[in-house]
Amino acid sequence: SPFISNTVSYIREKTSSNKQDMGKLIHSVKVGLALVLVSLLYLLNPLFEQVGDNAMWAIMTVVVIFEYFAGATLGKGLNRGIGTILGGGLGCLAASFAQQVGGTGKAIIVGICVFFFGAAATYARLIPNIKKRYDYGALTFILTFNLVVVSGLRAEKVLELARERLSTIGMGFAVCIFISLLILPTWASDELHDSIASNFEQLARSLEGCMEEYFRLACDKENQPSSTTSNSLTSSCKSVLNSKAKNEQLANFAKWEPWHGKFGLYYPWGKYLQLGDHLRELAASIRSLKSCLESPRQPSSPLRQSIKEPCEAVGSSLAWSLRELGESVMKMRKCQQGELIGPKLKAMRVELSSVVSTNSKLGNLENVEALAISSFV
Amino acid sequence: SPFISNTVSYIREKTSSNKQDMGKLIHSVKVGLALVLVSLLYLLNPLFEQVGDNAMWAIMTVVVIFEYFAGATLGKGLNRGIGTILGGGLGCLAASFAQQVGGTGKAIIVGICVFFFGAAATYARLIPNIKKRYDYGALTFILTFNLVVVSGLRAEKVLELARERLSTIGMGFAVCIFISLLILPTWASDELHDSIASNFEQLARSLEGCMEEYFRLACDKENQPSSTTSNSLTSSCKSVLNSKAKNEQLANFAKWEPWHGKFGLYYPWGKYLQLGDHLRELAASIRSLKSCLESPRQPSSPLRQSIKEPCEAVGSSLAWSLRELGESVMKMRKCQQGELIGPKLKAMRVELSSVVSTNSKLGNLENVEALAISSFV
Repeated sequence: SPFISNTVSYIREKTSSNKQDMGKLIHSVKVGLALVLVSLLYLLNPLFEQVGDNAMWAIMTVVVIFEYFAGATLGKGLNRGIGTILGGGLGCLAASFAQQVGGTGKAIIVGICVFFFGAAATYARLIPNIKKRYDYGALTFILTFNLVVVSGLRAEKVLELARERLSTIGMGFAVCIFISLLILPTWASDELHDSIASNFEQLARSLEGCMEEYFRLACDKENQPSSTTSNSLTSSCKSVLNSKAKNEQLANFAKWEPWHGKFGLYYPWGKYLQLGDHLRELAASIRSLKSCLESPRQPSSPLRQSIKEPCEAVGSSLAWSLRELGESVMKMRKCQQGELIGPKLKAMRVELSSVVSTNSKLGNLENVEALAISSFV
Repeated sequence: SPFISNTVSYIREKTSSNKQDMGKLIHSVKVGLALVLVSLLYLLNPLFEQVGDNAMWAIMTVVVIFEYFAGATLGKGLNRGIGTILGGGLGCLAASFAQQVGGTGKAIIVGICVFFFGAAATYARLIPNIKKRYDYGALTFILTFNLVVVSGLRAEKVLELARERLSTIGMGFAVCIFISLLILPTWASDELHDSIASNFEQLARSLEGCMEEYFRLACDKENQPSSTTSNSLTSSCKSVLNSKAKNEQLANFAKWEPWHGKFGLYYPWGKYLQLGDHLRELAASIRSLKSCLESPRQPSSPLRQSIKEPCEAVGSSLAWSLRELGESVMKMRKCQQGELIGPKLKAMRVELSSVVSTNSKLGNLENVEALAISSFV
């Protein structure tokens, strides 16, 4: 049985890593395609006569905004667009104001503008809420404002230059969006959804593994935990524990993504993050349960045997509840067994309390978990 | 006493947030200064006659690579430099090869090169180890290669163009490095060092708070925990638990930073990350200890009183050990009490074992902590 479960988990990992590799390959090919498309602006004579050297900006746009997830590409593209328009507009205003002053005052005014707007936008980039969603927009704003305001002093036709650049940036953006969203898109929303749902399964497995190991030891009388399974359990707990930053980034991208598949507009991505928080708490409990069970001071084997049955019952029904919840998240339906899980966990607690008088430590930790689970049923 | 400790922690937070605000302000002013300096290339006629429109690239470089931490700026700058040189060199080769072929074959060869190198570099950007340190370099490589190879078809003097651009990028880089490293630098290494050392203090405080609250309740007979202290303790544990991503990023920046202050070259930043891992484990133990103590099934008040003394002794000596370790990390000296801490914790465990027969749960968790601590003494 452990051999089979190991094989199953190996195959599962292999498939998922193959899927990831496939995704990376597809992304690379898509980027290559977008670059070729946008290079046509240079390569085809009729197109080049239209845009001239500004075609450079289309290439730059594609290279910079094409990201792995569709939502990230869209978010960066919109940020770049808004930043360019705002920066360009303000830059034109400042440049024409400096033109009217004339003389050496011109350069001084431009210098002051560059310093003031640069510092203000940089400060804005350090504010956490702006950094999270509009960092790239602020960067583009600084860049465009500076280029426009300083070149406004020299170029005769600032407005025409701005219009041409904006149109080539628009072309680059269009190519990116077309390829990123329409050809085999990789959605951050799918990734977030799947990773949260699979976390339930991971925790259920590590809980079961924990139980199994404890009582297998009690039977076999060999006090040497099989390090491979134990390690894989610890690492799956750890990956859940350290998932916060990744989940937040995914939710951030997912917010930019348009209506698609099973997700509507204004889908409550914040709920996923809350769910992730609860899962991390649960993972912490499972880890401390595990380290308690591994500590040298443990009840004797006969006592272990006597608590084996109720504990295994609790463990398997906890794992069952986790799987049930994970599946309901995965399939996005209300948990059918929802009404069952709550009372079942409560009944379990009562039952545990009777066992607990002989072994308070183990039971108490289970309790914590039960509470944590029932809190998000 | 709780009032004073609250005030102290409030002042401490206030000072640290003021210090952070100050740092942000200084950074913004520095960026503004760098932008003005680099804009002089446009504003001063003698300089502009030297570089011409290529001054644009200096501005772009400053905007893109100037980051909050000195190490991040240096890393991005070096990445940009290497990416530009590699991309430019390969681009020139590909362009001259295409020139030799001539005819329509020229455009086809350029297209194939764009696709192939773009896709390969994009794939490289998705490999975790490259992504961590050389992501920006690969991005610059794609950008420069594309620009050079497509414009190589039209511009007569590709090499001169490349040389001019490279020199303006160098100017931008020099301005950034000068201002970022020499004027009030913000080192990622300092930040990492301080945050790890202060984590020890935070854990010690939350452990003490946990103890205090538990036995205060036992005395007062009011079963309502004061939610403010409890929340602040939970949040300080949580911030330690979720510090992984931030620490890794800081260590990554710190690796780029040159010898400065108390840190030498090849300083073992990986050790800080290991220490961070242990601290996170400890934080997880403290959190589960806390939730155990808050669970409804607790021993009666007289029993609590009877275990009060040994438990408080254990708690305070654990907190003392943590502070001692934190201070030794902070001051970068070998922990003077190092030889004391190990045996002291062992003695504590023996002492606990005698208490534990009446209350196994509490003791066991403490044990886990003691083990975790002694594991990194």
